[in-house]
Amino acid sequence: MNKKIFVRSATENDVPIMFALIKELADYEKLSDQISTSEEQLKNTLFGVDSFVEVLIAEFEGKTVGYALFFKNFSTFLGKPGFYLEDLYVKPEMRGKGIGKALLNKIISLAKERNYGRVEWSVLDWNESAIDFYKKIGAKPLDDWTIFKLTSDKF
Amino acid sequence: MNKKIFVRSATENDVPIMFALIKELADYEKLSDQISTSEEQLKNTLFGVDSFVEVLIAEFEGKTVGYALFFKNFSTFLGKPGFYLEDLYVKPEMRGKGIGKALLNKIISLAKERNYGRVEWSVLDWNESAIDFYKKIGAKPLDDWTIFKLTSDKF
Repeated sequence: MNKKIFVRSATENDVPIMFALIKELADYEKLSDQISTSEEQLKNTLFGVDSFVEVLIAEFEGKTVGYALFFKNFSTFLGKPGFYLEDLYVKPEMRGKGIGKALLNKIISLAKERNYGRVEWSVLDWNESAIDFYKKIGAKPLDDWTIFKLTSDKF
Repeated sequence: MNKKIFVRSATENDVPIMFALIKELADYEKLSDQISTSEEQLKNTLFGVDSFVEVLIAEFEGKTVGYALFFKNFSTFLGKPGFYLEDLYVKPEMRGKGIGKALLNKIISLAKERNYGRVEWSVLDWNESAIDFYKKIGAKPLDDWTIFKLTSDKF
């Protein structure tokens, strides 16, 4: 692996940069209107006692340039957990250096270590560069499935 | 609510019927080849010390006729957890009685109680009766997203 790239677990000190990167990701996905969190809330939910989420930070030459946020899911068919990768983000000017791959490889190696059954995530259909990247590592699009979301105003 | 319908949390004693229902669901989804679990493994993963999964059982006139299996997910944009509904199944001959709705209502009320941000799940595109049901309760299909899956043979 490129020695300039370093992947590590996030700590509370990373929350300000993480919040900035989350906003960049939402902007990239044209979903900025969906952001309703704050640094304080992220600190409490990601690093509080009830936290169940894992976050990896990618550094390039010592600077934070990306992150991955994931948590367990469960397959009844396999009878075992897997990971769901909620966010994978690398700053646009830092793409093409293997940083996204380093983050994903770390998640895959954690899944292997824990004897998990799968790693899943979702991608926007227009994001062709991401889709190409995911196909290259052997991931398969579940083309016959659609995600449904019920937002809290409908609870 | 229909008094014949009763929704409760699953216990270890429900594992045999759950395993039977999981196999029925896989059969209904034409995905039986993906089943690689056993009763014993389900008991350990669903009710062992590391369990993070919640299971509801639906009874109709005292008989188990369906189940829902779900767990937490996390939205960085909302800064809070939600639920991901992995399985929602009602025996074919028991559909149309409000049993699926009773299961889903219980999950939604738990999400509300815990101040969660969303409930999400996935549906097979040919499953029109399910899709109609989900739209009726106000859920939205995320038509511009595709799920990717990396199976453990690619780890």
